[in-house]
Amino acid sequence: MREIGIGLIGTGFMGKAHAIAWRAAAGILPGALRPALRVVCDVDTGAAAAAAAQFGFARHESDWRRVVAAPDVEIVSITAPNAFHREMALEAIAAGKHVHCEKPIAPDAATAEEMTRAAETAGVVTQAGFNYIKNPLLKHARAMIEAGELGEITGFRGIHAEDYMADPDQPHSWRTDPSNGAGAIADIGSHIIGMARYLLGPIAEVNATLETAVKTRPVAPGAAERRPVLVDDIARLTLRFARGYGGSIEANWVATGRKMQLGFEISGSKGGLVFTQERLNELLFCRAGGDSARAGFTRIETGPAHPPYGQFCVAPGHQLGFNDLKTIEMAEFLDAIAGGARRGPDFREAWEVQKVVDAAIESSRTGGWRAVS
Amino acid sequence: MREIGIGLIGTGFMGKAHAIAWRAAAGILPGALRPALRVVCDVDTGAAAAAAAQFGFARHESDWRRVVAAPDVEIVSITAPNAFHREMALEAIAAGKHVHCEKPIAPDAATAEEMTRAAETAGVVTQAGFNYIKNPLLKHARAMIEAGELGEITGFRGIHAEDYMADPDQPHSWRTDPSNGAGAIADIGSHIIGMARYLLGPIAEVNATLETAVKTRPVAPGAAERRPVLVDDIARLTLRFARGYGGSIEANWVATGRKMQLGFEISGSKGGLVFTQERLNELLFCRAGGDSARAGFTRIETGPAHPPYGQFCVAPGHQLGFNDLKTIEMAEFLDAIAGGARRGPDFREAWEVQKVVDAAIESSRTGGWRAVS
Amino acid sequence: MREIGIGLIGTGFMGKAHAIAWRAAAGILPGALRPALRVVCDVDTGAAAAAAAQFGFARHESDWRRVVAAPDVEIVSITAPNAFHREMALEAIAAGKHVHCEKPIAPDAATAEEMTRAAETAGVVTQAGFNYIKNPLLKHARAMIEAGELGEITGFRGIHAEDYMADPDQPHSWRTDPSNGAGAIADIGSHIIGMARYLLGPIAEVNATLETAVKTRPVAPGAAERRPVLVDDIARLTLRFARGYGGSIEANWVATGRKMQLGFEISGSKGGLVFTQERLNELLFCRAGGDSARAGFTRIETGPAHPPYGQFCVAPGHQLGFNDLKTIEMAEFLDAIAGGARRGPDFREAWEVQKVVDAAIESSRTGGWRAVS
Amino acid sequence: MREIGIGLIGTGFMGKAHAIAWRAAAGILPGALRPALRVVCDVDTGAAAAAAAQFGFARHESDWRRVVAAPDVEIVSITAPNAFHREMALEAIAAGKHVHCEKPIAPDAATAEEMTRAAETAGVVTQAGFNYIKNPLLKHARAMIEAGELGEITGFRGIHAEDYMADPDQPHSWRTDPSNGAGAIADIGSHIIGMARYLLGPIAEVNATLETAVKTRPVAPGAAERRPVLVDDIARLTLRFARGYGGSIEANWVATGRKMQLGFEISGSKGGLVFTQERLNELLFCRAGGDSARAGFTRIETGPAHPPYGQFCVAPGHQLGFNDLKTIEMAEFLDAIAGGARRGPDFREAWEVQKVVDAAIESSRTGGWRAVS
Repeated sequence: MREIGIGLIGTGFMGKAHAIAWRAAAGILPGALRPALRVVCDVDTGAAAAAAAQFGFARHESDWRRVVAAPDVEIVSITAPNAFHREMALEAIAAGKHVHCEKPIAPDAATAEEMTRAAETAGVVTQAGFNYIKNPLLKHARAMIEAGELGEITGFRGIHAEDYMADPDQPHSWRTDPSNGAGAIADIGSHIIGMARYLLGPIAEVNATLETAVKTRPVAPGAAERRPVLVDDIARLTLRFARGYGGSIEANWVATGRKMQLGFEISGSKGGLVFTQERLNELLFCRAGGDSARAGFTRIETGPAHPPYGQFCVAPGHQLGFNDLKTIEMAEFLDAIAGGARRGPDFREAWEVQKVVDAAIESSRTGGWRAVS
Repeated sequence: MREIGIGLIGTGFMGKAHAIAWRAAAGILPGALRPALRVVCDVDTGAAAAAAAQFGFARHESDWRRVVAAPDVEIVSITAPNAFHREMALEAIAAGKHVHCEKPIAPDAATAEEMTRAAETAGVVTQAGFNYIKNPLLKHARAMIEAGELGEITGFRGIHAEDYMADPDQPHSWRTDPSNGAGAIADIGSHIIGMARYLLGPIAEVNATLETAVKTRPVAPGAAERRPVLVDDIARLTLRFARGYGGSIEANWVATGRKMQLGFEISGSKGGLVFTQERLNELLFCRAGGDSARAGFTRIETGPAHPPYGQFCVAPGHQLGFNDLKTIEMAEFLDAIAGGARRGPDFREAWEVQKVVDAAIESSRTGGWRAVS
Repeated sequence: MREIGIGLIGTGFMGKAHAIAWRAAAGILPGALRPALRVVCDVDTGAAAAAAAQFGFARHESDWRRVVAAPDVEIVSITAPNAFHREMALEAIAAGKHVHCEKPIAPDAATAEEMTRAAETAGVVTQAGFNYIKNPLLKHARAMIEAGELGEITGFRGIHAEDYMADPDQPHSWRTDPSNGAGAIADIGSHIIGMARYLLGPIAEVNATLETAVKTRPVAPGAAERRPVLVDDIARLTLRFARGYGGSIEANWVATGRKMQLGFEISGSKGGLVFTQERLNELLFCRAGGDSARAGFTRIETGPAHPPYGQFCVAPGHQLGFNDLKTIEMAEFLDAIAGGARRGPDFREAWEVQKVVDAAIESSRTGGWRAVS
Repeated sequence: MREIGIGLIGTGFMGKAHAIAWRAAAGILPGALRPALRVVCDVDTGAAAAAAAQFGFARHESDWRRVVAAPDVEIVSITAPNAFHREMALEAIAAGKHVHCEKPIAPDAATAEEMTRAAETAGVVTQAGFNYIKNPLLKHARAMIEAGELGEITGFRGIHAEDYMADPDQPHSWRTDPSNGAGAIADIGSHIIGMARYLLGPIAEVNATLETAVKTRPVAPGAAERRPVLVDDIARLTLRFARGYGGSIEANWVATGRKMQLGFEISGSKGGLVFTQERLNELLFCRAGGDSARAGFTRIETGPAHPPYGQFCVAPGHQLGFNDLKTIEMAEFLDAIAGGARRGPDFREAWEVQKVVDAAIESSRTGGWRAVS
């Protein structure tokens, strides 16, 4: 096992998640590389210093360019605000670093393409933070689908709904800044789009409607002044997958009461699968046919039969949490860097997801089907 | 309480359901009228005779025209195959009878309009068999919405998925006969469309995609010969309600493992509601705001606080079944005939539902938004 | 099909439930006998008259002895307060009537024995109102157990908890009158004891603790005066079944929030079964062994594969309600009277249940194991 | 933040769990002390070396006495087989180390007392591995109970059932070695006993039945020879808490299909709480009274309102897993060592739990109530 230097940019929500995962990865899912926490960066020097102390980074910076340029950093982990993703990633790539960038990596497909091509030209390994598909049960679901256990797929219904923007007095923020690309479709829609692709392959066409349910929001917390919201709160997509079957997706950040309604139902001629991140350690599976007096959806609980669960805990029933999914993500990224399978999702995959987002936006404007291309 | 004569046409699935409900209505939900089971009809005389004996009808017929014409019959209950609905209903209306007709009452909006106008001109009371909305919890949900407990509605997500056509070897039948109008969108989509309207008002526009997941089916049970399927297995609708908010609906009769996934999630600025007919005695409600350490969806179980549950059972927790919903439907129909509130859904409502179905079919053909009109 | 005259005593909660079920039975589950609603009785003449009108009884009485003696009454349905069960049943039996009596039929095993012996000597058919075991899914569970699908049974955990006495200001009533026998153990414990016996056979020994959680209650609704409660609110039983395995039961009428937590989990070497009346149309089944990546509890929904569901509805997923269970109970009672299988539970079974209740009371007094005898 | 040296004994299931938690603690839940992974020990030198490499311990040992004696080790984490707990803990205490010992710390109360007294005399801080009560939702439940939100407690029903011994061909092992104390009651019963105490205070008396459901097991994996099982598979306890209310507990390791059915229902005059580790991020709460049309159990999902969840993730809905509970356990232990609140459970608490286990065993032998003392 050799050490590989990590530079982390950002110390907020995802910054901490990355730090936790980088610290945990080698202990839980050992591979050829062991992350060495070299430098953490935040524009706020105090935050950077605190993060270094807390997470165990060797040093800290307030200028991300020094992270990207640091000779002892081989992997740059980008969790800064979305608006900085492109510049940071391109510069890291230019410096020959492997790059993990939180999603959405870019505000549009063109930018994602630029980043993808830069990385591929440079030969570095990339990772986009679609953590939820790192769930062992989703690996299992995909394997079942690919093994034909669901037969011919007949449909997909996907949802990612939360309520963090449901309060009409929730003020404007980067989330509602249209220069970041879009609203719910980009922020959480990208997760379920990525999940749909992971499970069922490319999406060929979309017919989408994006709408702004909360028409105005305060300009700042508690402000009386309200300004129009220019991004979508809810996106509803009808899909055509490249393999021929159809589906739908809803992305919704005003779904009152929902904290993590990210899930799907997939039907096929031989079986059905149901999943929700609200119960991320359970997968429902129903086999078609058989004895109807004993048939129904079986609640499969994550266990050692669903790798790499067994590396977290040798006994079934103990359950993984969100940070564990992030740990798997980091471990698989390390494995790819070490020459193992490239399980992604990498920048190219993030670009593909962004193409679907862009097509959805365009479809919503024009009111009909739009090819994803 | 005066008696009112019932004539029932059809003795199959819905024929039995009507018979059970007519027998039960007055005992459970007494009103001004008491159904008197006068005549039951089936083209198969033996079936008609058996039904009369079993259900307690005074006599039986094999010619439905004799039911419609019978002087002692004031209500005609139509559960014959869909293809006969129009003719039977029109003739019953012409004879001055009140008419209960199973859904879909007609293969298209134009026919539903014809039937509606005939009934309204004749001054008879009509009922269409959208039984699921007779659930006391749906009355409750509607009352909550109308009282503003959900605040400004931001979205609706509806589904009616079953798997009775999921087996690719399920043969052609009246269900796949295109002269009946459509497939899943008409057969079960009409339920969730009606439920959406019941809860949230008129649907102004739809953007729909209908698709045939099982491309060919055997011409008969066990037959080797297969013919193309010309109706939809799955319909996916994006909606614009007249009140301004959006939504979506999926109707799907190839949803492997699902026996009655008829449900919805409604979000509003002040609350959210979730329901599925799979657990028809439960309604989930989440109030926005409040103490986040104690917030979440509350599982409301049907009880005496949800009329007319208390007339079925004075204690909570005992649960209603499908036939109870049908009984409520009949009791409310009787009440309307006796001059009480017309809670419907009547033919006019069925016509409105059919307009949505027709708009969905048309939208699917043309690939974009289509007004419901 | 010949008519059989019904006399119903009592028009309250259970009186209405009986009336509904008697009216429905022949239409839904036709057999050799068709109930004819001859007379309904209530000490309150107005209530009796109203019930006759509503439920369709030919006449009404305020003196139950006239029901029992009526020549046109062959079945006496007893839903009067528990204190009257013995006298009414014995007199009905003496008059040669078949008797359906609500549970508990008697305040103690000795009384139940007296009633049982009288009925058996007279040769009449009896029924005790343990309606919940009439659920088609429980028939299925029992058949699975008897077929060995669970292998060697290793344990049973049963519960019947509700909250109708949870409010400390809920006043004294017949429920807390010790002359009726006991509290929760008799009122609802009898249901889960009967269910345990139905599924797993006789209970040989119990080790029980009965306790009074609410020490005093108002003497009347709203009264300031409170008197001690002398019956149990909660009974906890450890069991030894005659077939060798153990189990436990809790009966609890102060279980805040629970409206019908009547259920069980049964484990065996080859499988497990879980049921709760809160979701009476679902049975969970897990098969031991097999592929652990796909194993788990399967949610079986009631359908035509679980007779007699199909007589209520030919399609799966439509669900039964409480009154449907009562209808099955009446239909099976009629079938027994007509010479068919005696599926019970009859008075002898109610006596057996009462023996367990009595043994539990005695065990609680003495503090250890007590044989059921 | 100062470093504190950790010595870990054992590298199996719990050894890895400790290593993961020690590595994660300071990054997620920073306090005054930062664990420094000094030495890991396994009798198998290869395993010890591998563990050191994987988990990042500075060195490894095969002789645990060298861990206990090491000057740079301040905390000894004991995850060796139960039979070694006493000796290791006593020696570590004698060396002035703080000790974390997996449960059960001892085979009987006398031994637990000896260990407790030694630790208290030495003035070291101890921790017993009852990880499940470290769930933020259980802290919340306890706070709600202590704040009186449930009113007067009326009852507790607890369960810990799994199926790891359900297969009759699962061979004998340390689990079935009676010198370790007992079977299911000790191995998992101790968890639910500890949870009951954590939530509701001391247990004063028990009336218990322990039974061996699988009478014989193979002497080794695949062996034809079977020997009698001398420990319990299932323990059923009726409880009397010191505060006056009653309850029950079942511990069961032959519960086919159950992987982690560790949970409880608590009822009080003002509310009810339901929890199961199968869905460890959910707590059900029902408030008594109020509007019955909107009442029911609310599903509370873990979020930032339930500390220390917010230190794992700032957004709700992301969920904790088993290893996160273990991380909280280690962080709280560190905090106690640093002079903060002693949240335990410490050896004294483990001794109290063991007293209940011993009383249950004794009660089962003698067949009645037994004081816990």
